[in-house]
Amino acid sequence: MPISPDSLLADLRWRYATKQFDPTAKISTDAWQAIEESLVLTPSSFGLQPWKFWVIDDPELRQKLAAQSWNQPQVIEASHLVVLTARADLELHDIDQWIQRLGQVQGTPEAALAPLKKMIVGFSGAMTPEQRHDWNRRQVYLALGQLMAAAAVMGIDSCPLEGIHAPGYDELLGLQNTGYRTAVACALGYRLATDKYAAAPKARFEKSQMIAHL
Amino acid sequence: MPISPDSLLADLRWRYATKQFDPTAKISTDAWQAIEESLVLTPSSFGLQPWKFWVIDDPELRQKLAAQSWNQPQVIEASHLVVLTARADLELHDIDQWIQRLGQVQGTPEAALAPLKKMIVGFSGAMTPEQRHDWNRRQVYLALGQLMAAAAVMGIDSCPLEGIHAPGYDELLGLQNTGYRTAVACALGYRLATDKYAAAPKARFEKSQMIAHL
Repeated sequence: MPISPDSLLADLRWRYATKQFDPTAKISTDAWQAIEESLVLTPSSFGLQPWKFWVIDDPELRQKLAAQSWNQPQVIEASHLVVLTARADLELHDIDQWIQRLGQVQGTPEAALAPLKKMIVGFSGAMTPEQRHDWNRRQVYLALGQLMAAAAVMGIDSCPLEGIHAPGYDELLGLQNTGYRTAVACALGYRLATDKYAAAPKARFEKSQMIAHL
Repeated sequence: MPISPDSLLADLRWRYATKQFDPTAKISTDAWQAIEESLVLTPSSFGLQPWKFWVIDDPELRQKLAAQSWNQPQVIEASHLVVLTARADLELHDIDQWIQRLGQVQGTPEAALAPLKKMIVGFSGAMTPEQRHDWNRRQVYLALGQLMAAAAVMGIDSCPLEGIHAPGYDELLGLQNTGYRTAVACALGYRLATDKYAAAPKARFEKSQMIAHL
């Protein structure tokens, strides 16, 4: 049952980068499962899913991560905190794993997937390791976009946390030998009524400056 | 009126990278306005909105862009085609423009925004021009994520087009001296009943491999 254009717009206008979360307001299990599933369902380039998402339940770890996040209170007070990490590179092994998985899920013989594999290897091989990392990070931001939109239509507040100290996050999450690197984080939960940012007019450039028709 | 977790999941599972669009099925004006507004409302780092979105109405231009997109039929057949472009760099001028706009919309004196400006200049100045371009491209992918999720909850199909020839797009869109570069494109509309990809099982890695709790 699709929602109406007006309803979508009301949800997206209601959304803002929440500064003060209600520490007592927890996202229900059902809604949280849907949030996690929205991460799993995010589309990615060639389907590669070059990411891993970390849900930080441990309050002590949240405290330590806050210290790597300019002490932004959202890291501690929001109902949930997700750290979105990207593969540092994309190796043949990653591509093989994906081709295998695709064949398994869709019942396609590996030989039939050889042209796809060749295309991915070609695309990926034309990049430097750093460019591949950037490619992967872009996919993670796509996941962040779907995550925040999914939360908004369910009436869940969020705050993207981009200016965090990623190497500090990597260390606290124990990512050193995992091949994943912190890209961005996102706090999710419910706003406090006192958060003055909720009432601030939404500041965007004029639509006519941002969107052109050709 | 928020949608339920089940309803969100049904929408996100219904979504897939549509290959065959119905060329006769057009997105209504209302729904398209909401799609454009969802682009405008996309959050971005520091609110900078380092992007411009191009809606390609001209069928001849669509034909030419298809030739820069491995002749994927979606470019021509979908109801709408959006090209998402990112600022090639982020200059002091861009930051000034944003600070000015923010002050104007929120009625904040420019002096009160000086600390924010200083922070953005510091953050941005620590990067090379190429890193700033990558930063901007990540924001554009966030917009793509919100765009596709917004479309899905309204029952609109989409197909992200990443493997396009970006320099060819830049030339056809006349971006040479605009300071914007093509990042990715997205076709939107309604699937044909005959698109076999709609019925293919959704292939993702196991949730347990992708999401960890700490």
